[in-house]
Amino acid sequence: MEESHQIFYGYVIVEKGLFKTVGKGSPSSKEIADADEVIDGQGKWLMPGLVNTHGHLGSTLLRGAGDDMPLMDWLKQIMWPNESRFDKETVTIAAQLAMIEMIKSGTTTFLDMYHLFMEDMAELVIDIGMRATLCRGMIGLCSEEEQEQKLAESVKLYKDFHGESDGKISIALSPHAPYTCPPPFMKRAAEEAKKHNMMIHTHVSETRGEVEQHVKEYGKRPIVHLEELGLFHSPCLIAHGVHVNEEEMVILKENDVAVSHNPISNLKLGSGIAPIPEMVSKGITVGLGTDSTASNNNLDLFEEMRMAALIHKGKQENPSVTNSLKTLEMATFKGAEALRISQLGKIRSKFKADFILVDPAAPHLTPWENNRVHSHLVYAAKGSDVTDVFVGGKALYSNKSLVKLDEEKILYEANNKLENFV
Amino acid sequence: MEESHQIFYGYVIVEKGLFKTVGKGSPSSKEIADADEVIDGQGKWLMPGLVNTHGHLGSTLLRGAGDDMPLMDWLKQIMWPNESRFDKETVTIAAQLAMIEMIKSGTTTFLDMYHLFMEDMAELVIDIGMRATLCRGMIGLCSEEEQEQKLAESVKLYKDFHGESDGKISIALSPHAPYTCPPPFMKRAAEEAKKHNMMIHTHVSETRGEVEQHVKEYGKRPIVHLEELGLFHSPCLIAHGVHVNEEEMVILKENDVAVSHNPISNLKLGSGIAPIPEMVSKGITVGLGTDSTASNNNLDLFEEMRMAALIHKGKQENPSVTNSLKTLEMATFKGAEALRISQLGKIRSKFKADFILVDPAAPHLTPWENNRVHSHLVYAAKGSDVTDVFVGGKALYSNKSLVKLDEEKILYEANNKLENFV
Ligand SMILES: [Zn+2]
Ligand SMILES: [Zn+2]
Repeated sequence: MEESHQIFYGYVIVEKGLFKTVGKGSPSSKEIADADEVIDGQGKWLMPGLVNTHGHLGSTLLRGAGDDMPLMDWLKQIMWPNESRFDKETVTIAAQLAMIEMIKSGTTTFLDMYHLFMEDMAELVIDIGMRATLCRGMIGLCSEEEQEQKLAESVKLYKDFHGESDGKISIALSPHAPYTCPPPFMKRAAEEAKKHNMMIHTHVSETRGEVEQHVKEYGKRPIVHLEELGLFHSPCLIAHGVHVNEEEMVILKENDVAVSHNPISNLKLGSGIAPIPEMVSKGITVGLGTDSTASNNNLDLFEEMRMAALIHKGKQENPSVTNSLKTLEMATFKGAEALRISQLGKIRSKFKADFILVDPAAPHLTPWENNRVHSHLVYAAKGSDVTDVFVGGKALYSNKSLVKLDEEKILYEANNKLENFV
Repeated sequence: MEESHQIFYGYVIVEKGLFKTVGKGSPSSKEIADADEVIDGQGKWLMPGLVNTHGHLGSTLLRGAGDDMPLMDWLKQIMWPNESRFDKETVTIAAQLAMIEMIKSGTTTFLDMYHLFMEDMAELVIDIGMRATLCRGMIGLCSEEEQEQKLAESVKLYKDFHGESDGKISIALSPHAPYTCPPPFMKRAAEEAKKHNMMIHTHVSETRGEVEQHVKEYGKRPIVHLEELGLFHSPCLIAHGVHVNEEEMVILKENDVAVSHNPISNLKLGSGIAPIPEMVSKGITVGLGTDSTASNNNLDLFEEMRMAALIHKGKQENPSVTNSLKTLEMATFKGAEALRISQLGKIRSKFKADFILVDPAAPHLTPWENNRVHSHLVYAAKGSDVTDVFVGGKALYSNKSLVKLDEEKILYEANNKLENFV
């Protein structure tokens, strides 16, 4: 087993946001004396913070507003009429609620694609202290002038915020999806990304119908088409990739395009089951994502890990196509790789000190010994087992208390917003 | 919507283990004065206790002992060598640990099929106060003498315990599976069940290979064969039913055979995805089950509900093939129907007072209003949101504290048992 996969009794020392020491046994008395602060995690499991590679925080208040409906009915009756009424306050409450849920369930880094108030979102994330990749989602079904304005907004967001918060904030360019971004606009997005050295994030091949429609309209499959349009000349992360064939997987691998696997959202919306073991065996980088609470309906990456580990075994009728260790990697440093964030997702010297503590004193995590820890984290743990969360060495959640966010207030405000919804 | 599906602000009055009153609004001052005890559930959701229709409590300590392995390797390297060493103490600790986990995550009724120390198990369940259907699992790959001894043990268990604990204990007859019970033994089991008026519980058609082997050996599919052997002349509940064809579904329906759907275990072992929406649309009674922690790896029925709601949408690429309300029914009164326990699984006058309280003051259950409660329970809630559990009106879990079981002690004992394992 690679060293970083070992489970051992030990300690970490953090300096300037990075792990300085990852040690076995107990720290020396000198190490303890030299520390500004000592946190006792005795009896708990320390692991990398989880990385959520796809979501839409602004729509968090639509959790449970319309389930079990055909996709187009859901979009037309629930999502669009409500989202069109969202004001800054609604989106801010939604984003705070989402961050509370993510922090409490062990997520330290997330990607957010949304089309409203992204500057405010950036300020908010900086204030709260999470690590995030933010992108202003751009729908290209509009005039060329509006398209250019959206691109300009995205570039401005990048110039204003990329690298802020001690490097914790990244900004990506985000054309929404091939079916909402006509080829000339996709091409423009590819040009802007290249010019400004931005990463690209987009939805691709989420549903069978969308792929069939694309082939009908353009005579080629979406991923073949996006490559031609130059989208993969910049670092690129695609969300979903449920309906991707062999040829397209080769294109993804050759262009180092990463995939955000969102198994729960894909099931819930009836999109299907992505060919993830096939992608992984081809060497494609795959991270995990929750998508929004409107199609999940929670942001707990422990749930997402479990689903990612289970679903492919059942689909292929083979329990060995996934395993707990690979699934943990997907939720941590593979996710970091997908977001092009270096030195993140492992408990290792010089890596970013984003880590969480999990309390194993729970019936569903019993019995345990070192060689059952990976299994318990994937197949039995809940987000509610997380007790402490650190980003860049700073505590965001300590002994089950949020350091910054006022949970009671935000839950109250979120419930109060319901009266504005259709 | 049927009355019992309505969400409203109200109260319940319990008398002699049953709901006497299910009222809207607040109780009258006379009702309060007449009560021996008043419990304030203000702000919480009250719902029926969950019903787990399939499990093996005795092997709970094998949680996480061997995952991601081909089925036969797992059985030969992990399950059998360990189970052969289990003594009474190990099984007792395992059963207590399982009950702690079940109670804490809102389960009030469970079925347990195990082959060791079932009398002790019955005593233990009576002491703890859960509702349970217990069966001594019988493997028929042995001499006729041993087969008869196992049948006699099962019948004795029935005579000694069926109806005990104010009717909370039921005993069923349990030939393990067609591939471990040759036809003459299945026939004998059917005869004994009929003679003593016992319900039958058995594993059927869990894996594709098992069905193919059965057809090869006997020239007919398992369910066709079991009907011929008379197994369905008694009330019968089969576990899994993953590989069941149209003809077999008709047989199940005609004989009123119920199915325990164990989606997580079926995925984890690579067995596949059972045709549940097809069964439900044919009118077959389907309940939910976790199977054991060795193949799940937890006993949280909220997880099982979520999987049961999600998996079929994804498999069929149709979000409307399941919904939250039907899934809640599966986990409550359909499960009770599957176990042939009457007046259980609804919050309704004269029904058994098995109910739980869920605290919605959590980010993942926010925002909520009445018409989002079903959705939140299925798509967002965790077992850890349960705060109180009542069986027959008696509290087993109160404000997040177990009334009877000493959790810390049992977790400690469970961890100590690990040194005996291979
Ligand atoms: Zn999305
Ligand atoms: Zn079983």
